[in-house]
Amino acid sequence: MQRRNVLSKIAVLVLIGVCAALTFTTTGLAQAPAQAQDPLPSWNEGPAKQAIVEFVGATTDKASPKFVPPEERIATFDQDGTLWVEHPMYTQVMFCLDRVPAVVKAKPELAKVEPFKTVLSGNREAMGELSMDDLEMILMATLSGMSVDEFYAEAKKWIETARDPRWKRPFTELTYLPMLEVLKYLRANGYKTYIVTGGGQDFVRAYSERVYGIPPEQVVGTAGGTKYGYGKDGKPFLTKEPKLVLNDNFAGKPEGIHLMIGRRPHAAFGNSTGDREMLEYTGAGAGARLVMLVLHDDAKREYAYGPAEGLPDTKVGTFTQGLYDEAKKDGWFVISMKQDWKKIFAWE
Amino acid sequence: MQRRNVLSKIAVLVLIGVCAALTFTTTGLAQAPAQAQDPLPSWNEGPAKQAIVEFVGATTDKASPKFVPPEERIATFDQDGTLWVEHPMYTQVMFCLDRVPAVVKAKPELAKVEPFKTVLSGNREAMGELSMDDLEMILMATLSGMSVDEFYAEAKKWIETARDPRWKRPFTELTYLPMLEVLKYLRANGYKTYIVTGGGQDFVRAYSERVYGIPPEQVVGTAGGTKYGYGKDGKPFLTKEPKLVLNDNFAGKPEGIHLMIGRRPHAAFGNSTGDREMLEYTGAGAGARLVMLVLHDDAKREYAYGPAEGLPDTKVGTFTQGLYDEAKKDGWFVISMKQDWKKIFAWE
Repeated sequence: MQRRNVLSKIAVLVLIGVCAALTFTTTGLAQAPAQAQDPLPSWNEGPAKQAIVEFVGATTDKASPKFVPPEERIATFDQDGTLWVEHPMYTQVMFCLDRVPAVVKAKPELAKVEPFKTVLSGNREAMGELSMDDLEMILMATLSGMSVDEFYAEAKKWIETARDPRWKRPFTELTYLPMLEVLKYLRANGYKTYIVTGGGQDFVRAYSERVYGIPPEQVVGTAGGTKYGYGKDGKPFLTKEPKLVLNDNFAGKPEGIHLMIGRRPHAAFGNSTGDREMLEYTGAGAGARLVMLVLHDDAKREYAYGPAEGLPDTKVGTFTQGLYDEAKKDGWFVISMKQDWKKIFAWE
Repeated sequence: MQRRNVLSKIAVLVLIGVCAALTFTTTGLAQAPAQAQDPLPSWNEGPAKQAIVEFVGATTDKASPKFVPPEERIATFDQDGTLWVEHPMYTQVMFCLDRVPAVVKAKPELAKVEPFKTVLSGNREAMGELSMDDLEMILMATLSGMSVDEFYAEAKKWIETARDPRWKRPFTELTYLPMLEVLKYLRANGYKTYIVTGGGQDFVRAYSERVYGIPPEQVVGTAGGTKYGYGKDGKPFLTKEPKLVLNDNFAGKPEGIHLMIGRRPHAAFGNSTGDREMLEYTGAGAGARLVMLVLHDDAKREYAYGPAEGLPDTKVGTFTQGLYDEAKKDGWFVISMKQDWKKIFAWE
């Protein structure tokens, strides 16, 4: 039962991805003279953009009652659906599916066992029908058992070569340009930016610095344990264990923030029910707080899946009507991708 | 059994404390002109000081084969016995003992139950005889059950008023001046400095920024879980739970470093068997690595308790002969408090 519970929790982590950062630095921001520069050129004028600019202005102005001392400037961002595309499937799940052949090579007996057999067949339709239990088995098998260094190397290699099925681009190019601008704008104003993701902490760390300018130590994610040991050469190393230390979804997000950061953020960005508690926790702090939700309402340029009627708030990865209502009630800002974002991707 | 195991692990965390930082900024460093300034004025010339200066010089020199890119400059420091005094008792244990009356006030039925009865008696000798099991019960009772904000407030208040029994000074004045200089020197050269302590993460966070210049998010310690919930006013908050998430001693140190930082330090400082694995892990990385052990060999100015013959390497808080031998074999530097430190405390 215990093990089953851990497995199902690990499955929830299935929220990861990658993005388009290298392009970011070369686009859009280097045209106007420094003084007149708009820090958020990919945003249309409107309440969302205005809220961000006003928050940054007030919290960095020593004369303002909303001033926040530099050391307390913490901003947290969900990743999947907030910083990059999360459809048709979390990027990390694709990574895990792609890792199955290597796992089977190391353990050939798995080749004849489901769900590995189906994944090896390459039949995309059959893979789409895999149950949550199947996915859990795949995640456990593909995210543990190797050294931390080996895992980072594998994840880095994959993220550089894999392609998104719709746009045929590296996942790292499916980051939202307006959100990359927000990250950069906050950092330029003394904020430490963190990713707080339901996805696997080590997976996101493999590319977060390159893609988002966020170093590994500022990635809080669903985390498994590691085990310290020695190789044949006597050298110590850490092995990734199939043991859940932090389930960074729902209440796990503020709990993870406390574990890893130790203070309450002044700004938080999310896009789904899995972010609700992080947003509540951030908004409930004293002084200036900025709480924002990205609403996916642009089927043409990206995807449209909210606010979704009739879905339970307990389902991760959805922007439910209940979440929308809470945002309105608590004074959170809802970012409409359709209306607020001039551009979605840097390469558009 | 499970619960017992968790309790005994929590007991191991009994490694915390505080120090003397405010004095630091006003002492010693503001005399010579900037160029000629010695970054480590409280150190005597010798192999330890030389190793630190050479390491910093080489790893920040782009022309050196030992150059380390700024984002990878991570340095980790044990706290008790490495950054401040750990005798006659870990400071955190004193904090927990002092908290017992408040805990009993909230739960009066504990007043007649051991070990609380003994602690309430104020009989220092009897308290000194408390068993490890007794201490575990006290730690569990005093470090959980309140909100995170309440805990921080309590710990901050205590650390400002409590006094060390030998020098009758705030514990925060019992930090080692030479180590504060090392922290500052590393940061001035682009290193992120972390505390990696067997002590309680939240306890150390309550004063680390003021005392060491190390923000809460750079404190890795033995950590309990928290639980997200809502108050009567509907506002969310986190409650500290009697559940161990990270036992940050021995192998738990490199495991905690991976969980919280995600990359291997280039420099690590410790003083006891509980730091061994952190030092090994740091030393085994590629490129330039600096591994140092503080040896307590100055009974007059502080305490002398190493290298200790006949003690098992599994006992936390001791500098055993086995640790000394490993240091010599692996090229770690042993810092002799007696020989290497001109001054130990800022107020001397």
